Amino acid sequence: MKKSMGLFTDHYELTMAEGYFRSEKEEIIANFDYFFRKNPFGSGFTVFAGLQDLLEMILEFKYDTQAIDYLHKRGFGTDFLEYLKNFQFRGDIYAPREGELVFPNEPVLRVKGKIIETQLLETLILNVLNFQSLIATKANRIRHSAGNRLLMEFGMRRAQGCAAIAASRAAVIGGMDSTSNIYSAERYGLESSGTMAHSWIQGFEDELVAFREYAITHPKNCTLLVDTYHTLKSGVPNAIIIAREMEQSGHRLSAIRLDSGDLAYLSKMARKQLDEAGLSYVKIVASNQLDEYIIKSLIEQDAPIDWFGVGTSLVTGKSDAALDGVYKLSLINGRPTLKLSEDLIKITLPGEKKIVRYFNGNNKFYADAIALATEDDREIDTIFHPQHPERNTPVHGLKGETIVSKVVDKGKVVVEEKSIDEISGYRKFRISQLPDEHKRFEYPHLYKVGLSQSLMNLRNTLITGLKKGN
Amino acid sequence: MKKSMGLFTDHYELTMAEGYFRSEKEEIIANFDYFFRKNPFGSGFTVFAGLQDLLEMILEFKYDTQAIDYLHKRGFGTDFLEYLKNFQFRGDIYAPREGELVFPNEPVLRVKGKIIETQLLETLILNVLNFQSLIATKANRIRHSAGNRLLMEFGMRRAQGCAAIAASRAAVIGGMDSTSNIYSAERYGLESSGTMAHSWIQGFEDELVAFREYAITHPKNCTLLVDTYHTLKSGVPNAIIIAREMEQSGHRLSAIRLDSGDLAYLSKMARKQLDEAGLSYVKIVASNQLDEYIIKSLIEQDAPIDWFGVGTSLVTGKSDAALDGVYKLSLINGRPTLKLSEDLIKITLPGEKKIVRYFNGNNKFYADAIALATEDDREIDTIFHPQHPERNTPVHGLKGETIVSKVVDKGKVVVEEKSIDEISGYRKFRISQLPDEHKRFEYPHLYKVGLSQSLMNLRNTLITGLKKGN
Repeated sequence: MKKSMGLFTDHYELTMAEGYFRSEKEEIIANFDYFFRKNPFGSGFTVFAGLQDLLEMILEFKYDTQAIDYLHKRGFGTDFLEYLKNFQFRGDIYAPREGELVFPNEPVLRVKGKIIETQLLETLILNVLNFQSLIATKANRIRHSAGNRLLMEFGMRRAQGCAAIAASRAAVIGGMDSTSNIYSAERYGLESSGTMAHSWIQGFEDELVAFREYAITHPKNCTLLVDTYHTLKSGVPNAIIIAREMEQSGHRLSAIRLDSGDLAYLSKMARKQLDEAGLSYVKIVASNQLDEYIIKSLIEQDAPIDWFGVGTSLVTGKSDAALDGVYKLSLINGRPTLKLSEDLIKITLPGEKKIVRYFNGNNKFYADAIALATEDDREIDTIFHPQHPERNTPVHGLKGETIVSKVVDKGKVVVEEKSIDEISGYRKFRISQLPDEHKRFEYPHLYKVGLSQSLMNLRNTLITGLKKGN
Repeated sequence: MKKSMGLFTDHYELTMAEGYFRSEKEEIIANFDYFFRKNPFGSGFTVFAGLQDLLEMILEFKYDTQAIDYLHKRGFGTDFLEYLKNFQFRGDIYAPREGELVFPNEPVLRVKGKIIETQLLETLILNVLNFQSLIATKANRIRHSAGNRLLMEFGMRRAQGCAAIAASRAAVIGGMDSTSNIYSAERYGLESSGTMAHSWIQGFEDELVAFREYAITHPKNCTLLVDTYHTLKSGVPNAIIIAREMEQSGHRLSAIRLDSGDLAYLSKMARKQLDEAGLSYVKIVASNQLDEYIIKSLIEQDAPIDWFGVGTSLVTGKSDAALDGVYKLSLINGRPTLKLSEDLIKITLPGEKKIVRYFNGNNKFYADAIALATEDDREIDTIFHPQHPERNTPVHGLKGETIVSKVVDKGKVVVEEKSIDEISGYRKFRISQLPDEHKRFEYPHLYKVGLSQSLMNLRNTLITGLKKGN
């Protein structure tokens, strides 16, 4: 995908860019906000992910000769194409740390710079952040259900094409321990894992021979898939024979894997057979269309499953498929702006903004303020509900922390690259600071996000002005 | 993604490959079938897509030094890595034409070759075909609703990351006229289109100035977005002013775009305003969370919408997110094999197979036979329901056509590259041959797919043998 990254955009971004160029507006400074309106999956929060990939792609967002030739054929003007030849983003970007927990309507990421540069990045920013945040949030739900059990992401074969690459990354950020996707493992330094498919068993005379052959060729990491013929009558008994053979050569069978049938029942029966054979160290892995709800249910049924493999529903973000993030203009030529809507909730927030997070005495998240970037945190006393300002919350005296900082300065990335482990670790730390009632799957408690007085005043002034003008 | 394509696979494919290598089984010949069990979206059929991309990726499926070094660090053996250094697929692949209509349980694509080669391709094949077939099928549903109206794919910003690239391709194969995704337009020779976002309007003093500036800079292809402030009081009246100004300079306003509100109501009112101003040539475009059901409803309400833009639900395949395709071993070392299951419907079909499509007197699809590749089409008299052989259908005397042919021969692609136009044209032709009752959204008539007598006999013999053996 590296070739002509500048083309990784919607056609209209280029049409508008050419329009700004012809109207001689290309020097005008604009600020765009990336935000979403709804947490996915009915969650109480969203895990912010994709930042590091995004920054890398922004640096590659340029137009090579092939791209320029193509745009020429498509009717873009020669002078504009001359401009594009030297295009690169030279503005500023502000964002939270990757792995941060964020909430609806917060200006999660903001981009400030010349209008053509900020406009051309729109599609890329939406594409990367919407997807990775969706998957990291889904993974975190699965982690929430699974507690400390080992979680493996298995979804590559059902992922949406090359989306698999970023999906595995985001899944690990969100809480998976490893992935089956060895491409992403290499690219992002993830743990990867995998043993055998049913075809391996079919490739040999019988199941026992297939198991034995695998144990001989992979003595150090041997998980046997036991459901090809009959899990309890054939798969587990054969695995027990192999486990004993492995013991004789100084090795240990790692695990058996269940991939069909009633996982609660089969895991209990298999555990019993293994334990009776003195193989209590052999783990049980389960897979087959798992998601956060099925895992929760299996654990509630005391299914003795040690490791879970989760595929399709994780890497496709079932059942939401997309985070509804948008990218809206909030400042043009030094002047704050907003987009009106007959729907109050869709009126955007003007100006350059930041997010301040307040903590209660136990160092747990209490509420977030959306404030003007220039405001002094200590002067924010109260935060106001965006649509119902009569509902407000005092934050006076609480510890506040601005969670957004500059990550790109005049086109240069100014934050250090972090490992996926660090990013996932930060997510885990933040989850520990989030009160439990926001983590529920059913009707999670709504986390308070309010406007500062100054931002609310600015917004109201602009609305009044626009309504008079039209 | 071109770097180290050989790593674009699940870890376990490599673990198994190493196992086959160590067991000295790497020369054994295997046949794998790609098939799915359920049409997506409750459709009566699936549009087969992704083949040409897949073949290209299979040619690139190799291991460069970086990949080998990585696998070495991950503990794969030196002798096996020596083998991988020279790895390339040298087997045969059989498939339908891209754009073909296919049905559950049909061995859509089959791969025959050395077991390591056929096994290593599993994840790639599933990843590419599952996704593109899903999206092409979704696009075809939208096309079915829209009749001959123009359809534009707008989903890049909500697509699952780089899945956007293949999604746009598959969307056009399935029936879209164009895409907003200019990256895919360049890569695959698609039509692309796009004009302005709300930010363009906000970038100017007022809506009229913004419209005028766009019309001046883009006189040949000008679509104005009319819902930034108030569609009927501001947007459409301003568009009418601009349309008249354009007429004076010898141009024509192409269209207005509605992107919020009640599209049925607003399109009727806007049409009236435009017609009364003598602008009946100005088209109306609608977008905003459309899918096949909303488009159907808008048309039933006589909404005068000429062009539709469809985004998220198309490119993510909402609400299915994944086609459930699988890749199963059916021949090993010259010996047909199958995977038993307690669930009759999950028992796989053994041997090397083909699909024969039968036509009725009107040259419409009548039924498909799954037969042994070696069978003479003319000797297939009757086809049998896979689970209930007492339900059978005579096909004697009907015109039959084998819809699968060799596309890769000893590792060489032997089919000519087709343009997306040709592929989409073939899909359209095949749709015209499919009886209408299979195209319904609600409970489409089940298309008959049966086994030939010879295949059924082979399967039954193998089942009996396996059950005795266990």
